[in-house]
Amino acid sequence: MKDKTPEKYHITEMRVPLFEIDIGQVVYHGNYFHFYNTARDEFFREMGYPYIEFMKRGEHLAIVETNCKFKGPVSYDDIIEIHTGVSWLRTRSISLYQAIFKRDENHNLSMVNEALFNMVCISDQFRAAKIPEEFAYKVKTWMNNK
Amino acid sequence: MKDKTPEKYHITEMRVPLFEIDIGQVVYHGNYFHFYNTARDEFFREMGYPYIEFMKRGEHLAIVETNCKFKGPVSYDDIIEIHTGVSWLRTRSISLYQAIFKRDENHNLSMVNEALFNMVCISDQFRAAKIPEEFAYKVKTWMNNK
Amino acid sequence: MKDKTPEKYHITEMRVPLFEIDIGQVVYHGNYFHFYNTARDEFFREMGYPYIEFMKRGEHLAIVETNCKFKGPVSYDDIIEIHTGVSWLRTRSISLYQAIFKRDENHNLSMVNEALFNMVCISDQFRAAKIPEEFAYKVKTWMNNK
Amino acid sequence: MKDKTPEKYHITEMRVPLFEIDIGQVVYHGNYFHFYNTARDEFFREMGYPYIEFMKRGEHLAIVETNCKFKGPVSYDDIIEIHTGVSWLRTRSISLYQAIFKRDENHNLSMVNEALFNMVCISDQFRAAKIPEEFAYKVKTWMNNK
Repeated sequence: MKDKTPEKYHITEMRVPLFEIDIGQVVYHGNYFHFYNTARDEFFREMGYPYIEFMKRGEHLAIVETNCKFKGPVSYDDIIEIHTGVSWLRTRSISLYQAIFKRDENHNLSMVNEALFNMVCISDQFRAAKIPEEFAYKVKTWMNNK
Repeated sequence: MKDKTPEKYHITEMRVPLFEIDIGQVVYHGNYFHFYNTARDEFFREMGYPYIEFMKRGEHLAIVETNCKFKGPVSYDDIIEIHTGVSWLRTRSISLYQAIFKRDENHNLSMVNEALFNMVCISDQFRAAKIPEEFAYKVKTWMNNK
Repeated sequence: MKDKTPEKYHITEMRVPLFEIDIGQVVYHGNYFHFYNTARDEFFREMGYPYIEFMKRGEHLAIVETNCKFKGPVSYDDIIEIHTGVSWLRTRSISLYQAIFKRDENHNLSMVNEALFNMVCISDQFRAAKIPEEFAYKVKTWMNNK
Repeated sequence: MKDKTPEKYHITEMRVPLFEIDIGQVVYHGNYFHFYNTARDEFFREMGYPYIEFMKRGEHLAIVETNCKFKGPVSYDDIIEIHTGVSWLRTRSISLYQAIFKRDENHNLSMVNEALFNMVCISDQFRAAKIPEEFAYKVKTWMNNK
């Protein structure tokens, strides 16, 4: 996933809730997608285009592909950082690179998960749609503000 | 819950999936509602009025109250039976009594959970609606066929 | 649930995540238990006895009964407050009353859900255990500090 | 994913439950992993080595990487088939290719999702472990029985 690694990240911090933990005493593999989803939401909101704006237009950003690497366990009550960056932005699609880091008491980070999400803009009837201009503008502005 | 205990039950059988298990190695308390939901769906389908018929009318059976008792742990791979019965049926609402039993190798059952669900029929706009006549008819027919 | 209504509440604020929403465009009934769980965790942590301390002792607070009333829909991106209070505390059990309020732009609150949770302290082997003394002390101190 | 496509598949059939559906009226992207998980469980059980046997040894098959493609929506009450095949088997790891098909009334299948799961055998303490010999034997036998 290296060549797509973004230069800039939005950071969401959270504590791992009990209901995300499975029989192995760690986060269930399918539940990492909750963390990534929440982080994307915070990213879009802080960038100035909350995800709900897509929905008001009758649109969604649908995930068409993900590649996800599970590098280490995450436990209940762990404090994690979710880093979200933009790999690329096109007329009808966007690719986000996201990674989850576990933070110890000394604020050292170790990566426990990383994932790439390719998303396309679709209408409520599952037809391809153009990414809203305002969203694209906000993304580009965010990427250029270093 | 005794006075509301129905005389007749629909029975759904299933194996407890791994993703329903939590950090305590047993089913997460909020996930019993998945089992009850699936059992109601099978009950309605076999009774002759699949739940999706409500949705085609732009309606839902919304739960307004539940009382749920957790009597014993349920583990991954356990075989459970979910018993579903009708406590009462009114013009706009229905109450179901449901219970979950763990089944051992000798097919002995021990109750691990029981719950009462009071539901009202609502429209997509969350307005009260009458229970569809055909549904009511099917429920009454099922209750009377012993 | 009136006679058990506590006098004092801990308040947790959160935004409703997308993954808690179901086909009816509102929070799935079984997912309210995630919000209540998270709020109890924050309450215990701020009270001075994080839930993970139970687990370090090989113990859990297991829910044995809940009564939950669904009074109105909660949507994606809504800001909610979860109020958590103590109904009673005994040697081996505790009862919490919790309620969820939707907050509008003017910071007006409307109750959308309320629930009572009776919990008992159990060991990893599902045997009844005494509530840890330190936890009981912290709960009583919190209840008396008005 | 073509070069890793297996020649033989185990097939699990199920009906999509309501609680897997999200705000877009289709299965939430993170919940496809529930279907894949359930299908792997059924595959292992029918192959003669139920997953719980790993757990009795204090071991798990931990997913270390997944590549998942979302090709079309799946709705509540849809009947799906989950096809599970073995891409490769090594001393400490296994790779499964799985795909989900939607089945229409004429029993025609259309692929809606496909995923590759690379898994390693680990102990309860998250140390690498060898795949149990009996499991490896059962997998090879299954692959060779055409």
